[in-house]
Amino acid sequence: MERVETGLRSIYKNAPPRLSGILEHSLGAGGKKVRPALVFLSGSFYRHNPDRLLSMALAVEVLHTATLVHDDAIDNSAVRRGRETINKAWGLDKAILIGDYLLAEAEELTMATENLPVIGLFAHTIKAIASAEICQSQDAFRPDLTREQYIERIAGKTASLLSLATESGARLSEAPLEAVRGLREYGYNLGIAFQIVDDVLDFIGVEEDIGKPVGSDLAEGTITLPSMLLMEHYPVDNPVRRLCENAGDRNDNIRQAIGMFRDSPFVDECYGVAMKYRDRSLHSLEVLPEGDLRTSLKELAAYVLSRKR
Amino acid sequence: MERVETGLRSIYKNAPPRLSGILEHSLGAGGKKVRPALVFLSGSFYRHNPDRLLSMALAVEVLHTATLVHDDAIDNSAVRRGRETINKAWGLDKAILIGDYLLAEAEELTMATENLPVIGLFAHTIKAIASAEICQSQDAFRPDLTREQYIERIAGKTASLLSLATESGARLSEAPLEAVRGLREYGYNLGIAFQIVDDVLDFIGVEEDIGKPVGSDLAEGTITLPSMLLMEHYPVDNPVRRLCENAGDRNDNIRQAIGMFRDSPFVDECYGVAMKYRDRSLHSLEVLPEGDLRTSLKELAAYVLSRKR
Repeated sequence: MERVETGLRSIYKNAPPRLSGILEHSLGAGGKKVRPALVFLSGSFYRHNPDRLLSMALAVEVLHTATLVHDDAIDNSAVRRGRETINKAWGLDKAILIGDYLLAEAEELTMATENLPVIGLFAHTIKAIASAEICQSQDAFRPDLTREQYIERIAGKTASLLSLATESGARLSEAPLEAVRGLREYGYNLGIAFQIVDDVLDFIGVEEDIGKPVGSDLAEGTITLPSMLLMEHYPVDNPVRRLCENAGDRNDNIRQAIGMFRDSPFVDECYGVAMKYRDRSLHSLEVLPEGDLRTSLKELAAYVLSRKR
Repeated sequence: MERVETGLRSIYKNAPPRLSGILEHSLGAGGKKVRPALVFLSGSFYRHNPDRLLSMALAVEVLHTATLVHDDAIDNSAVRRGRETINKAWGLDKAILIGDYLLAEAEELTMATENLPVIGLFAHTIKAIASAEICQSQDAFRPDLTREQYIERIAGKTASLLSLATESGARLSEAPLEAVRGLREYGYNLGIAFQIVDDVLDFIGVEEDIGKPVGSDLAEGTITLPSMLLMEHYPVDNPVRRLCENAGDRNDNIRQAIGMFRDSPFVDECYGVAMKYRDRSLHSLEVLPEGDLRTSLKELAAYVLSRKR
């Protein structure tokens, strides 16, 4: 993972001088580095070229950063990973353009794998993410989202990137087809679990841990599993529904929804759904050889459920 | 070129249903299709696979459209190619996300060429464009831009894409290295000439022809060759300088600058500079076999100088 940090540093150090500072701000902001770790772990079960794995690990992290930069521009967010966002510090125009630059940088890194199916998967993943985000934006403040639509959306916006990480790792090694499939499904299901926990943390987390204000989803009108459960169980006089109908004070509604959720059994219910996907991800690992790598992937799945940030 | 239209149509027809309408709006808006024409012409001198050329022709047009969508979002423009912009019709968030989707679509199309150097060139070009646009945005309302900086910027934001079109066409055929170099330089120099004419048309064009309001560059603080000549020749009490210093009424300054330029010998001076680059582009074609293709490329260079839109 040290090579990932060095690789990220070399991206902003080798960039045109006038871009360096903005790139350092976005790429050097820390973060959990779950996605590059997934590439390395998934790519190490079978014979592999470590340089190509490193390129791909950097590519998924840079792509992830690009999507965060554009998300923050869209939501007009001020804080990310405890730092000012690009749009806040440099303006919307720079955020759009730096996001584009990072997308292309990620593509160049993917290209360095010289593996056409992986390059194709990469492009396909960006389309899936953008497409899911467009649906999310079209569905903002619409209280009638179904459970299936919710899963479909988080599959596109989050699980697609985690399964890109695991599948590309597998494909860059000499993994048999069955192992490629197992790792892809591990990444996909882990991604769903990961996003459900993210959505829960947006309600019950602490700003210092999650690196952004609590209640950001509701502020943008994004309906997630916690909001859906609140609306299911309290169909009358519900703050989420009021928020969607633009009735009453916006911030009061958000605060009320957060308060209602925090002290409710719905937290456990959400974790229950996340655990179901985590269990599926663990099951997908059965086709892989036993050993330290498989254990690490299992631990990563456990971490995703227990994380506070 | 009919296959290009069909190919563009199939992109929005095969897209997720909720994206189709926005994609049709952006990809179906017409446009001159100079870039796909350059791919076909450049790729047809030597033995080639027509399907791969078509993929690449679509890729450059889709990439071009992606950059226009993001440009309009950045500039908060209302009209493009005579239509409402995506940001105007659907909002800023959709414009950012559809731009990202189109970037990935262009990458998938490039990938279909299965040519790694071309795929690499493609990613490199997006970085060059984004990087030049960031510099342009950092230099907004700064009157002290040098001629070299101006050329460097339009090389990045426009010439890079035209030389991607010509070089990728050449590389996708069995062109000898000398021909690849000739076509790349043709595209590059044509791109510089093309952008200078664009910058002149922003002063002397007609809104119905250019598909967007006259004076858009000045409104965004983008200093171009016409403004630079005005400031060189009228160092005192200059409307462009006043605009940069935020002195006097903004729209008055823009109108005055346009008026001063229209009736001046600087129009010819700008065309003179554009012609210099056009001549270089024509010269680069000398290494290519004589015939219809070379004649078409020469005619395209002539058209670039004479165009009104």
